[in-house]
Amino acid sequence: MYKSALTLAALSSAISLSAQEPASVSLAEIADKALEQDTIAWDFVEGITTEVGPRQAGTEAEARARDWAMVWLNANGFDNVANEPFEMDTWVPGDVHRASVTAPYMQNLVVQPLGNSAATPEGGIEAQVVYFPTLDDLIAAPEGSLTGKIAFVSHEMRPSMDGSHYGYFGGARFAGPGIAAQKGAAAIVIKSVGTDLHRNPHTGTTRFPEGVSAIPAAALSVPDAQNLERMFERAGDAPLSLKLELNPRRLGMTMSGNVVGEIVGRNAALPPVLLACHIDSWWNAPGAFDDGAGCAIIAAAARNVRKAGQPLRTIRVLFAGAEEVGLFGSVAYSKAHIDEPIAVGLESDFGADRVWRFESNFRETNPDLHSLIAKSVARFGVADSSIRASGGADLNIVRDQKGAIIDLQQDGTRYFDLHHTPDDTLDKIDINQLRQNVAVWTTVVGILANEDRPILTGGVNPSAPAVMEQ
Amino acid sequence: MYKSALTLAALSSAISLSAQEPASVSLAEIADKALEQDTIAWDFVEGITTEVGPRQAGTEAEARARDWAMVWLNANGFDNVANEPFEMDTWVPGDVHRASVTAPYMQNLVVQPLGNSAATPEGGIEAQVVYFPTLDDLIAAPEGSLTGKIAFVSHEMRPSMDGSHYGYFGGARFAGPGIAAQKGAAAIVIKSVGTDLHRNPHTGTTRFPEGVSAIPAAALSVPDAQNLERMFERAGDAPLSLKLELNPRRLGMTMSGNVVGEIVGRNAALPPVLLACHIDSWWNAPGAFDDGAGCAIIAAAARNVRKAGQPLRTIRVLFAGAEEVGLFGSVAYSKAHIDEPIAVGLESDFGADRVWRFESNFRETNPDLHSLIAKSVARFGVADSSIRASGGADLNIVRDQKGAIIDLQQDGTRYFDLHHTPDDTLDKIDINQLRQNVAVWTTVVGILANEDRPILTGGVNPSAPAVMEQ
Repeated sequence: MYKSALTLAALSSAISLSAQEPASVSLAEIADKALEQDTIAWDFVEGITTEVGPRQAGTEAEARARDWAMVWLNANGFDNVANEPFEMDTWVPGDVHRASVTAPYMQNLVVQPLGNSAATPEGGIEAQVVYFPTLDDLIAAPEGSLTGKIAFVSHEMRPSMDGSHYGYFGGARFAGPGIAAQKGAAAIVIKSVGTDLHRNPHTGTTRFPEGVSAIPAAALSVPDAQNLERMFERAGDAPLSLKLELNPRRLGMTMSGNVVGEIVGRNAALPPVLLACHIDSWWNAPGAFDDGAGCAIIAAAARNVRKAGQPLRTIRVLFAGAEEVGLFGSVAYSKAHIDEPIAVGLESDFGADRVWRFESNFRETNPDLHSLIAKSVARFGVADSSIRASGGADLNIVRDQKGAIIDLQQDGTRYFDLHHTPDDTLDKIDINQLRQNVAVWTTVVGILANEDRPILTGGVNPSAPAVMEQ
Repeated sequence: MYKSALTLAALSSAISLSAQEPASVSLAEIADKALEQDTIAWDFVEGITTEVGPRQAGTEAEARARDWAMVWLNANGFDNVANEPFEMDTWVPGDVHRASVTAPYMQNLVVQPLGNSAATPEGGIEAQVVYFPTLDDLIAAPEGSLTGKIAFVSHEMRPSMDGSHYGYFGGARFAGPGIAAQKGAAAIVIKSVGTDLHRNPHTGTTRFPEGVSAIPAAALSVPDAQNLERMFERAGDAPLSLKLELNPRRLGMTMSGNVVGEIVGRNAALPPVLLACHIDSWWNAPGAFDDGAGCAIIAAAARNVRKAGQPLRTIRVLFAGAEEVGLFGSVAYSKAHIDEPIAVGLESDFGADRVWRFESNFRETNPDLHSLIAKSVARFGVADSSIRASGGADLNIVRDQKGAIIDLQQDGTRYFDLHHTPDDTLDKIDINQLRQNVAVWTTVVGILANEDRPILTGGVNPSAPAVMEQ
């Protein structure tokens, strides 16, 4: 659909120039085929959502997901498939998640706890609610003014293609509970950091500052939060009371792990290309968009590149564990492998909708490669950008090494309709957009894995020790 | 927006001809104003969803809804506002609604019980699932073949403007549980009779045949049902087991009631115009579309007609109780008032999207009136139809009297995305489409309430005894 005979020819030529072992099928042809009929990525994401489902970090469900992924990688031609275990401090949500307005109206609201929320006392708590339309309003509340009360923080997040509202309005979740706790609140409920109007709250991690005890912290679905806002409007000066019952708990240290697998390259001395995603999801979310699709895309791309012949560099996939709850897998991977240089890192963790923009952090230091990649994916409807790539959550090692990073930005317009909710199911994936992702990734990873010069800086002598590259 | 100067003038003239007491503001002007800026219907549906919320038939929540509605009707100029109580055999859903696949995969599924479902034994039941892609497949299963098993019935319902898929595919819910029970099933789960892809199952009544004991019967959300279908596909010959836990129960006889109110007409001897909706909703659904909007539309229309001067006939609104669970209010109303003729009945119970088609059951017997009404609403984008109106669930009395009926058909494309789910919230209402409903209803009810001849047959002498009219 995005095919152009001219750029296609240019790309084939570019790739065969840098590959030392020309393949019988060109990467361009393989990418075209992926665009039209890829089944590998779909098989992965259908499989993990159907046969595993939700996979909360540090639990047996995440362990089942690791086992499932290793079986899949081995069955799909990956080498050196392994689980790299690490310990983590594990929080689980419990199974009692109830809220009801008790005065001046009576109505149940739909809530889910935020990651790291404390439990309410047995039987729940009932208290007056104080409404803050924005996080800034909560910040402005006098110290101690919330003692014994429940804070309700709202916001006006809207869908955006680049997802930038998440960073801006997400503070209600990231920081709101800690701030409310510091001001003495007994608990906090927030409007879900989400953009849909369904009764499925968006969970996600919140962090309490050092020395501040966790309080019960929960997300209302957006319609429930809007209903609560209307209740405040209609109630006038009458106090509004909420009863909240949550039973999350901490399990202490349990095991998580990172799953890795490789397409081994011809030159083991060259640093590998690292493709990252995360294997865990929230307990309530089957994790199709977040991040089954990401793992599916990177695995399908790596496999596709191999079909064009053994690449020069090794391609390593990293299915990180425990991303959602604090990037534990990404941190553990960096700590374990910090001395092993990575040539370039890419992550897929923003759903399954089409890639629309290409960014790198070597546009100025290696303009030829940047430009070659940009031109190679233009035919898939991907535009070049001068925004500097910074990588996703699971690329800690590359950032720690100050290495090369590429961001293949996906259309995030729908992403926060589904993020961290039960609605993150397979049916949300548009197979044509998923295939476009695979085609783009196949093209980009194919170029990178067959590039003999350093990615970040270009023309350094390829015979120099690999460790010098970055 | 739909305004046409020509038809507007024709309508004004038609209405003022039949009205004995010309008003200072014409109905056409009032309808136009409703189209642009009605706030009455919105106030009703915002109020009942915010201040009451879900209102399961026969429970205290439905009683609060009746109280709320009577306050609203009195505050909005209705006369003879009353609750007409009746007894009903009440079922309530309980609060434990759990399902999980236990083999060959492990994953929780989202379920909600169907109305009249039995409870599972304490601790739930775990059994092999037998998959039936359609209700016909279940019907074809040999007697006794389901003994001790859980039936899973799916279907391929799709959105339709006229809602006709509900009748056709809804049998999985209406009849499936009774059929499964007759074949010895321990329980049944169905794909929700709904058209959305959110994890909010659609409940609704099921009926067990005389002499057949109720079994646990629940709806899976559509994504969960699709997931279960995929599990069967992937599991091959391996048996699939489900654990199901539900605790609904029967309360015995409790009180429900019908709320009525009137705009009193000038001629008490003429039968009234009856406008119906229902006040109850399922326990899980705030009932914005089903049927807060319907009550809002009929109440706003009746109030608007009064603004054009006291109508000739009385307009009665009937907010029926206990519709969802078996039309108990409609039946009770007919039984209590069968000897009091109704001039014509209309019901609003299909959401809040625009009216697109006008139907009556007097097109052949009173073609002039049918044609006048059709022409009066064409300017709002409503087309005439030769389909014979049969009325909705709360018009039992009119059907029992073999009286005149009008159906103002709404666009139902979105209706079964929301029907009987937690997602039936205020935000789903498009205020512009709600206003079009009010404009159309105001126009139609204004004509009917000022018509001195019998609605069904036209030219009978208006001085004849009212009871002869029908």
